[in-house]
Amino acid sequence: MSDARFGLNRIARLGSPLPLDGGGTLSSVDIAYETYGTLSPARDNAILICHALTGDQHVASDHPVTGKPGWWTRMVGPGKPVDTDRHLVIATNVIGSCMGSSGPASAAADGCPHGMRFPVITIRDMVRAQAMLLDHLGIDTLAAVVGGSMGGMQALSWAATFPARVRSAVVIASTARHSAQNIAFHEVGRQAIMADPKWRGGDYYSSGDPPSAGLAVARMAAHITYLSEAGLTEKFGRKLQAREAKTFGFDADFQVESYLRHQGLAFSDRFDANSYLYITRALDYFDLAEEHGGLLANAFRGAATRFCVVSFDTDWLYPTRESRNVVHALNAAGAAASFVELSSPYGHDAFLLESPELNRVVDGFLRAGA
Amino acid sequence: MSDARFGLNRIARLGSPLPLDGGGTLSSVDIAYETYGTLSPARDNAILICHALTGDQHVASDHPVTGKPGWWTRMVGPGKPVDTDRHLVIATNVIGSCMGSSGPASAAADGCPHGMRFPVITIRDMVRAQAMLLDHLGIDTLAAVVGGSMGGMQALSWAATFPARVRSAVVIASTARHSAQNIAFHEVGRQAIMADPKWRGGDYYSSGDPPSAGLAVARMAAHITYLSEAGLTEKFGRKLQAREAKTFGFDADFQVESYLRHQGLAFSDRFDANSYLYITRALDYFDLAEEHGGLLANAFRGAATRFCVVSFDTDWLYPTRESRNVVHALNAAGAAASFVELSSPYGHDAFLLESPELNRVVDGFLRAGA
Repeated sequence: MSDARFGLNRIARLGSPLPLDGGGTLSSVDIAYETYGTLSPARDNAILICHALTGDQHVASDHPVTGKPGWWTRMVGPGKPVDTDRHLVIATNVIGSCMGSSGPASAAADGCPHGMRFPVITIRDMVRAQAMLLDHLGIDTLAAVVGGSMGGMQALSWAATFPARVRSAVVIASTARHSAQNIAFHEVGRQAIMADPKWRGGDYYSSGDPPSAGLAVARMAAHITYLSEAGLTEKFGRKLQAREAKTFGFDADFQVESYLRHQGLAFSDRFDANSYLYITRALDYFDLAEEHGGLLANAFRGAATRFCVVSFDTDWLYPTRESRNVVHALNAAGAAASFVELSSPYGHDAFLLESPELNRVVDGFLRAGA
Repeated sequence: MSDARFGLNRIARLGSPLPLDGGGTLSSVDIAYETYGTLSPARDNAILICHALTGDQHVASDHPVTGKPGWWTRMVGPGKPVDTDRHLVIATNVIGSCMGSSGPASAAADGCPHGMRFPVITIRDMVRAQAMLLDHLGIDTLAAVVGGSMGGMQALSWAATFPARVRSAVVIASTARHSAQNIAFHEVGRQAIMADPKWRGGDYYSSGDPPSAGLAVARMAAHITYLSEAGLTEKFGRKLQAREAKTFGFDADFQVESYLRHQGLAFSDRFDANSYLYITRALDYFDLAEEHGGLLANAFRGAATRFCVVSFDTDWLYPTRESRNVVHALNAAGAAASFVELSSPYGHDAFLLESPELNRVVDGFLRAGA
């Protein structure tokens, strides 16, 4: 495809200011994105992949910082359930994030990073920005929007906000609203970041010394919620880390400690602390029913969008009952919805891991709608 | 009682060094404790109450820092299940803690606080220190040892370590070993404390400026594990804190955020950060089976102690299956054990809250053994 708008590592400047749920608009919005595959002549084969809290547009290409393969190569690629041989697949970096889209780390009009001057955004704001990117790409309607976790919230918000532009939505390991416990865990993370003196009220970009310790603690706390208790027991149990006996000290005696510390450090190497604040806030604010008069079914009434909702039985971050709640609302709204709870030992993270059942469900659903 | 060893706000210096699981001994050990009620002439009516991670000896007397009533006045007092009209009730502050017993904040031989020079201790070390206090009090045998959470671990460790000195043990909302998830949450807390620059490697006592922010984050993370998801939803849901609408900022918009922040701050006003490190370490090290050749039943074989094990159905910190695990081991060891799972919306914290069923169970069990 010779159109420079399509391919890897693209950034688009939106053509008009982005209206925000919090009021006002955001000007000069950049959206970093990638596309895989080819747009059909009828421009009707595009699938939008939406990422989770700390994900990005590198769905099926190597991550530029870590060098690791894209985060959903199991799902997206030639011959995969989201088949780049049949579809143009688009993945954007959400606004508020730090992989090229406008966010707290990007430059404001004065040339300095926004920092905490960046507006608090919502899931719907992220989706509106994606819609404007589609306008830029000349794509009116999506064959599907697909996402897990926060990506699933975006898929739901897409169907609710732009029902005519979404033929189908795949919502995996997600929820229509953040629970008190969800908010509580995020608040711990935010307080950990803000308690780090290096955070400096968000103005740490010129210091060359970001609040990595606080961000690492935030990640560690969140990471526990991504794994099932049984999965942690199976993987680590009380196994010791490269030692024969407890050291009676505060080193990482246990493998699970060493693992968590590594997760925290690796994350702070690749992610911006302020982005973590903004995106967790968007998640906590998410309550699709509230946006529709308090009744979730109202969000989907009259929509022609087909829905596929998937949960995992060991996911305690967004448990199956939250998916059922979505499905009940879809049924009440008369929307076409299929639902499956998959069994996995891996908790919330299961949607990112090898799961032939998940692949089969998504593949079948997308083929049925083709 | 004219014996100055009995009463409120007592501190005893142990008569000999305390041998430690980590090797060596701890000299000049102080144990802060309180007693309620009167020792019988036969000296056989004493009940030891063991406290949880952040508890103390002020079971049924006002807390000297917060001024709040004792933490288990629902359970302990005249006419209560642990009846101070019938029993001498003893409550100690565990070693490693900060309410008067020897711990990182107490003075070492050089007159300065131990800080991180304090040895890493275990649940069994705490129990050995309590046994030495009983020696000091002239009490050979306990009518019962009673505790919830870490207090329940001490009760188990008492029965395993000094079976001839414990006629009965009440183990509430507890476990015989810390799981990978338990360890993971504690590691988050420890990293939050150690990431606070004010921690200064544990040498903050003379600074007048302890690592309160890190300790508050640790408490917030832990506090979530003390509550059930359903309880959080019932109590807070997505209710806003003293405002009509979301502020699109990072203030505590949600009640659950405000609540958690308060919990963190209030805790850091009353607890020592290093003590939090040491006691969480003791909890993470706890694995009663490991201390007995890998088989939990071995811990109780031949014991004449009667056991009462209680769990709460919404406790996900130490879920019912952990209590069942203990009961299976007791059965395998031929010990007398009764077990009940109580229903409560409050999660792990249920053992501290109003629970007529818990009171009835403990009352019945203790009367049966009288």
